[in-house]
Amino acid sequence: MKRQELADTIKSHRNFLCVGLDTDLQKVPQKFLKEKYPLFAFNKEIIDATRDHCVAYKPNVAFYEAYGSKGWEQLEMTASYLPDTHFRIADAKRGDIGNTSARYAEAFFKQMPFDAVTVAPYMGEDSVTPFLSFDDKWVIVLGLTSNKGSADFQHMQENGETLFERVMRRTAAWGDTGNTMFVVGATHPEAFAGIRKIIPDHFLLVPGVGAQGGDLRAVAQSGLNTDGGLLINSTRDIIYASSGDDFQEAAAAKASILAAEMSSLLAEQNL
Amino acid sequence: MKRQELADTIKSHRNFLCVGLDTDLQKVPQKFLKEKYPLFAFNKEIIDATRDHCVAYKPNVAFYEAYGSKGWEQLEMTASYLPDTHFRIADAKRGDIGNTSARYAEAFFKQMPFDAVTVAPYMGEDSVTPFLSFDDKWVIVLGLTSNKGSADFQHMQENGETLFERVMRRTAAWGDTGNTMFVVGATHPEAFAGIRKIIPDHFLLVPGVGAQGGDLRAVAQSGLNTDGGLLINSTRDIIYASSGDDFQEAAAAKASILAAEMSSLLAEQNL
Repeated sequence: MKRQELADTIKSHRNFLCVGLDTDLQKVPQKFLKEKYPLFAFNKEIIDATRDHCVAYKPNVAFYEAYGSKGWEQLEMTASYLPDTHFRIADAKRGDIGNTSARYAEAFFKQMPFDAVTVAPYMGEDSVTPFLSFDDKWVIVLGLTSNKGSADFQHMQENGETLFERVMRRTAAWGDTGNTMFVVGATHPEAFAGIRKIIPDHFLLVPGVGAQGGDLRAVAQSGLNTDGGLLINSTRDIIYASSGDDFQEAAAAKASILAAEMSSLLAEQNL
Repeated sequence: MKRQELADTIKSHRNFLCVGLDTDLQKVPQKFLKEKYPLFAFNKEIIDATRDHCVAYKPNVAFYEAYGSKGWEQLEMTASYLPDTHFRIADAKRGDIGNTSARYAEAFFKQMPFDAVTVAPYMGEDSVTPFLSFDDKWVIVLGLTSNKGSADFQHMQENGETLFERVMRRTAAWGDTGNTMFVVGATHPEAFAGIRKIIPDHFLLVPGVGAQGGDLRAVAQSGLNTDGGLLINSTRDIIYASSGDDFQEAAAAKASILAAEMSSLLAEQNL
């Protein structure tokens, strides 16, 4: 998906919500456990219920790998079922030497129709650039993550610049605003203003709203840019909103509440 | 595998060679392309040919994912075929927030019988520790990697300590020398003496000998410790030593040359 299409989708749908698909058989309604492809069967119903209230989906690859090749097959089925009107993110946190990153890119961009894959920057340029050689595909590089462990290394500082700031500054130069995004956790709302000085135009993928405690309004106020520039992810609050027979209605209701909040936030900034 | 068993294996086999299984259908002998499970069929013959000349195997997960769920299935077949007398490493470079790293650990330690998985440290403690809660399983954390991009962030410095040194110092405290190793590329032989001051007792997984140009002797001289403490990986030089019908003999010959060099290096240090 091209940047303009993503920006247009955000403006016409009036939200910048990404629904996370961290599908866990211990949390889905019991009825799915009888299915041959339970992860996919659940995802399909969640996608059907939420597609009118979001602009992106993000399966978390770990939750499929945990079920082996059978899980991987259901990741493929899910990727194929995701509507191509939506931005499709493989949350995979990959990254390796060049010839190996190229194979990961093949897995997510050629074997499956994802628009983007999340990548860890520790190994530097040749671990990131192989993902940039596909037309209309994106790399989403970890910047400042939402978890407690983000404090261990990402705040290391040299000459007044933190590691996550250096990652953003350097990585931004390897690609462009039409093929590179960054992960910034909603659990650090105070960091968004500073980050927007380094990368004013890039899209940010923002996990950590909801179960992890991030503040949607604070993030939007300092994170939105003229193209929207944010994809805010919510997972558990939506897909596990109910474990009963009403899980689809409950998921749709939660997503629509978040989408309505986002609509107000867009309007406040005349977007 | 316990540390003592790994140390004993190195001493009795007289080598510390790890054979990388980055299996690529464009490089294997033509005859495998007719197989239903070509990646596995090739791996099986490589394992049979080299097991007497190495102590570890390291499938590179990207090369299986690039073939989709069918590739993942062959990774599982390969993992099951690897002899449990050898140390079995999933080179996956995973790492995510705690609940997600726990699912990756399940994939490699419960769905498959790997002894160790490589992990990227960018996300900090809660991205690493879930891998440490399995008995006799190991995490192998990226320290100083073998590629050009290692210079981009790993050398960032604060208070005289580089990022890769901080990763080693802090991560060493999350686990112990019986469940944590570090990746240090053979392309930085000058760094081993300094690294041994920070982590004298940990095992190091060392890629970059061979095709990437690293120097085995220099690495061994400053990297070996009383338990061996090194697993040196070689991939392309061994598994693609020949693309003809003699590929097994060629792979065995290359592995046995490396093993013999390692035997001398162990003897030089009275190990």
